[in-house]
Amino acid sequence: MASDIRVTVWNEFRHEQKNEQIAGIYPNGIHGAIAAHLSACEGITAGVATLDEPEHGLSDDVLGATDVMTWWGHMAHGEVADEIVEKVHRRVLEGMGLIVLHSAHFSKIFRKLMGTTCQLKWREAGEREVLWVTRPGHPIVQGIDDHFVLEHTEMYGEHFDIPEPDETVLISNFAGGEVFRSGVTFRRGAGKVFYFRPGHETFGIYHDANILRVLENAVRWAAPTGSMRFGCDMREMGWWEA
Amino acid sequence: MASDIRVTVWNEFRHEQKNEQIAGIYPNGIHGAIAAHLSACEGITAGVATLDEPEHGLSDDVLGATDVMTWWGHMAHGEVADEIVEKVHRRVLEGMGLIVLHSAHFSKIFRKLMGTTCQLKWREAGEREVLWVTRPGHPIVQGIDDHFVLEHTEMYGEHFDIPEPDETVLISNFAGGEVFRSGVTFRRGAGKVFYFRPGHETFGIYHDANILRVLENAVRWAAPTGSMRFGCDMREMGWWEA
Amino acid sequence: MASDIRVTVWNEFRHEQKNEQIAGIYPNGIHGAIAAHLSACEGITAGVATLDEPEHGLSDDVLGATDVMTWWGHMAHGEVADEIVEKVHRRVLEGMGLIVLHSAHFSKIFRKLMGTTCQLKWREAGEREVLWVTRPGHPIVQGIDDHFVLEHTEMYGEHFDIPEPDETVLISNFAGGEVFRSGVTFRRGAGKVFYFRPGHETFGIYHDANILRVLENAVRWAAPTGSMRFGCDMREMGWWEA
Amino acid sequence: MASDIRVTVWNEFRHEQKNEQIAGIYPNGIHGAIAAHLSACEGITAGVATLDEPEHGLSDDVLGATDVMTWWGHMAHGEVADEIVEKVHRRVLEGMGLIVLHSAHFSKIFRKLMGTTCQLKWREAGEREVLWVTRPGHPIVQGIDDHFVLEHTEMYGEHFDIPEPDETVLISNFAGGEVFRSGVTFRRGAGKVFYFRPGHETFGIYHDANILRVLENAVRWAAPTGSMRFGCDMREMGWWEA
Repeated sequence: MASDIRVTVWNEFRHEQKNEQIAGIYPNGIHGAIAAHLSACEGITAGVATLDEPEHGLSDDVLGATDVMTWWGHMAHGEVADEIVEKVHRRVLEGMGLIVLHSAHFSKIFRKLMGTTCQLKWREAGEREVLWVTRPGHPIVQGIDDHFVLEHTEMYGEHFDIPEPDETVLISNFAGGEVFRSGVTFRRGAGKVFYFRPGHETFGIYHDANILRVLENAVRWAAPTGSMRFGCDMREMGWWEA
Repeated sequence: MASDIRVTVWNEFRHEQKNEQIAGIYPNGIHGAIAAHLSACEGITAGVATLDEPEHGLSDDVLGATDVMTWWGHMAHGEVADEIVEKVHRRVLEGMGLIVLHSAHFSKIFRKLMGTTCQLKWREAGEREVLWVTRPGHPIVQGIDDHFVLEHTEMYGEHFDIPEPDETVLISNFAGGEVFRSGVTFRRGAGKVFYFRPGHETFGIYHDANILRVLENAVRWAAPTGSMRFGCDMREMGWWEA
Repeated sequence: MASDIRVTVWNEFRHEQKNEQIAGIYPNGIHGAIAAHLSACEGITAGVATLDEPEHGLSDDVLGATDVMTWWGHMAHGEVADEIVEKVHRRVLEGMGLIVLHSAHFSKIFRKLMGTTCQLKWREAGEREVLWVTRPGHPIVQGIDDHFVLEHTEMYGEHFDIPEPDETVLISNFAGGEVFRSGVTFRRGAGKVFYFRPGHETFGIYHDANILRVLENAVRWAAPTGSMRFGCDMREMGWWEA
Repeated sequence: MASDIRVTVWNEFRHEQKNEQIAGIYPNGIHGAIAAHLSACEGITAGVATLDEPEHGLSDDVLGATDVMTWWGHMAHGEVADEIVEKVHRRVLEGMGLIVLHSAHFSKIFRKLMGTTCQLKWREAGEREVLWVTRPGHPIVQGIDDHFVLEHTEMYGEHFDIPEPDETVLISNFAGGEVFRSGVTFRRGAGKVFYFRPGHETFGIYHDANILRVLENAVRWAAPTGSMRFGCDMREMGWWEA
C-alpha cells in the first residue's frame, strides 16, 4: 500500500576504474554493490548515479524522484559542481534523506550541511575496528547486537570536527588506540542526515552483513516524513541567493 | 503484515466522574475518547486503564503487551503507587513509547524520567493558543500545517523545568503573552518519550482534529524499534536497587 | 590579571547613513552604540568595523586580535566578500565567539555556520514582544528576570530554519500570535555562536537595559576557552579547499 | 574581587579504611586528595564530607554554602539516605554544580538526575585507556592536549545508559576493545552536571596531572551562573511532593 522508498546511490566511481584490486572487490562499483543490496530489501527501490555522468547523474528529474540519497566520494570531491551541490542541499532541506558514507565526510554537500571542516585523523593500516551501539533501540541499529567487528579497516580518529550530533548511535574502537563517532545523525531543514564511517574502498566493507543492515535501516529512517516550505518572498527582497 | 501497534491509554479518570460538565464532554472518559480515535486508525489497537482499577489497570501482562502508553493525570498524581511507576519506568527504558499529556507533566513517571521538577506557570482563562511547528518534517507533525489554533484553552507558560529536549517540535503562543514548548521529545533507555501540552479536561481538546492527528502520529513515532538489555549482574553486586 | 576580552562590533552601517530617523536613534551607528556599551563593561574592550571599510574592516590583524565578534547586517548581505566570510568562518572554528544579531540571521557567515536557509516569518508592525527565559541559570541570562518586554518591535516568527540548537535560552511571544526562538546557542569547531533576535534599526532596541545586559553576558560566555587545530596535511592531499 | 568557588568534595570513604593498598594510595582518602588539589587552585576553596558523618556531612548549612559538589561512591550507594539525596537534588536544580566521579554513575543522585539506569559494562584488568577530546575549546578540557593516557585503569564500556548528553567532551578507548563516553555534560534545572569516568580506587587516578586539570576546569565550568525559582504555590495545590 505504501509506495517504495526511492533511493539514489551516488558514487564518485573512480577508484574502481583505476585500481584492479578495488575493481575485483566491487565489479559493479561501490554504487552497484549498495544499490543491489537495497533493491533486494522489501519496500526499497534503488537507482545509481556517478560523478562522470552529465550533471553527475543528478538531473532535476532524478533529484525530484529521490527520497533518500547515499553519497560516497573520496579522491574527487573538488570535481563535484557547486550548482549540483546547491540542488542536493535544497532537496535535503525540503525533506530528502542523506546518508553520507566514509570519506564523504569531506564531500562538499556534507561540509555545507555541517558548517564545519569535518576533518579527522586517519591511518590506513588494515586494523581491527569494534563498533559499539550507544543508542540501543534506535531504528538505525535495529537487528544489530550491542557491537560488531570489522577485522581490517582504515582508521578514522577523533577529533571529528562536526557540530554536536542530534544522536550518537555508534562509536568505534580502533586497535591502534583511537575512537570515532562512527554513526551520527543530524536534522537540517526537513531532511534527516546520517553519517556512517565504515566503507574504505580496499576492504570490501559493503559486503559485510552488519554494514548492509545498518544501511537498510538508515534508508528507512531517513525517508521523508514531511517537508519544509521555502519562503520565495525572501528572494524578492534580495536577501537570499541560492 | 506488520502487526498492530498496541496502545494502552491510561487515565486518572476522576474529573469525569466528579464533574457533570466534564462528563458531558467526555461521556466515556478522556481515555475513552482517545482510545476510540486511536483504534479507528489503521494499524493501531488501543486499550484503556485507569487509576482506580487494581494495579491501576497496569498488570504485568498489560504492561508486557503495550508498545506505546499515553498518560493523563491531574488531581491524583500522588495516588499512583510507586511500584507501578517503577514498572512503567522499566518498560520505557526497555523500549515502550510514552506519550505524556497536559497536566501529566507533574506525574510521577514523567518527573522520574526527566530528573527535574517539571514545574511551569499556568492560568485557567480559556484563552487563545496558537501552536507553531518548529520542526517541519518531523513525523509527529506529519499532515499538520505550519500552525494550528485552539480557541479556548488553559495557559501553560515558561519556564518549563525539563532537561533540554532532544527535539522541540511545537511551541505555543498564548493570548495573555506567554510561550510554552508544547511538543518536545526525549529518549530514555530504548524508549521514546513525547510530552504534548494541550488537553485540559474542560475544553474538549481531545475532539480537535489537529490534536488527534498529532496523537496518532506520536503513537506511530513512539512505537518500539528495538530494546535495551538490563544488566542483571549489577543487581547481584548490590549496586542496583529497583 | 586576566586580560580583557577583545570584541569587534561589525555593522553593515547603511541604514544609519540613509535614513534620518535611524541616524537620530543611533548617531554613531548601531556599532557605535553597542561598542560604547561593551567598552564600559569591566574586562571588555570593543572596537568597530563596517562594511564599506577596506576588507570590511576585518583585516587579518583585526581578526587575529578578536576574541568575540558581533555581527549586524540587513540590506547588504550580498556585498560581504566571500573571502572575508571564509576568514571569519575559520576564526570561529578556531575558537572566536560570534554573536549574530537580528536580521543577520540571513548573513553569509550565519548561513554558512548553520548549513540551513535560516529563513523565518516577519512583519514590521511595531508590536509587543515578551521574551521568556527558558534556561534559567544560563550565563547569557544572568541578571535577567524570568521575562522582559519590548513594547515596539519587528516580529520574527517560526518556523526559523536552523539546526536544533544546543541550548534554547529565550523564546518570544508576539502580540500578533507568533512565537520565536530568540536566543539560541550553537558550537561550531571550538567557537561558540549565539543568535539573538531583537535589534531592528528603527526601534532603538540597543538602548534597552535588558538587551544590553544580554549582550554583555553573551560576550563573556562566547569568549574563547581553547582552540581547535586545523589539519593542514589534508590540504596537501587535495581533499580540502578553503 | 570575585569570591572563591566553594566546593564540597563528597566521598563514601569506605575502601580507604578497609583496604591497606588503597589507604596507601590515598592516605587522606580520595576526598582528601581531591580537596587538597582544588584548594591549591586560585579562586577555589574546597571542604570535604563523607558518608559516615551525621547527615553524611551534608547539613543544610553545608549544602547552602556549596557552589559545586564532587561525588565519589562505589560500594555503599544504598546507604545514602533518601532525604539527603532529595536535598542535593534540589540544590542542583537551584544552580549548584555537580561533578559525578567514576563509580558514582550508580549513585542515587546521578540516577535521579538522569532518569535512566546508568548501567554500563566493566572489567577490572588494569588495562590501558586513551581519552580523546571530542569537543576542543570546551572549558572542561582547557589546557588538555587532543588526548591523554592512563596506563592502568578499570574498563567501563558502552552501552552507558544515560540520556543523550548535552555535550560529549571525552571518549575513551580501552585496550580490550571497548569505548566509553568518559566526559559528558547535562543541565538539570539551573545546575550543571558533569560525569567524569576515571577514578578507580586502586589505580591512583587522582594523582594524575591531566585528571586533576580536568577536575579543576570542571569546577570552574560548573560554578553557578544564576538560579531557578521553585514554584511554592504548586505544593499548596497538592500537585507536588518533594
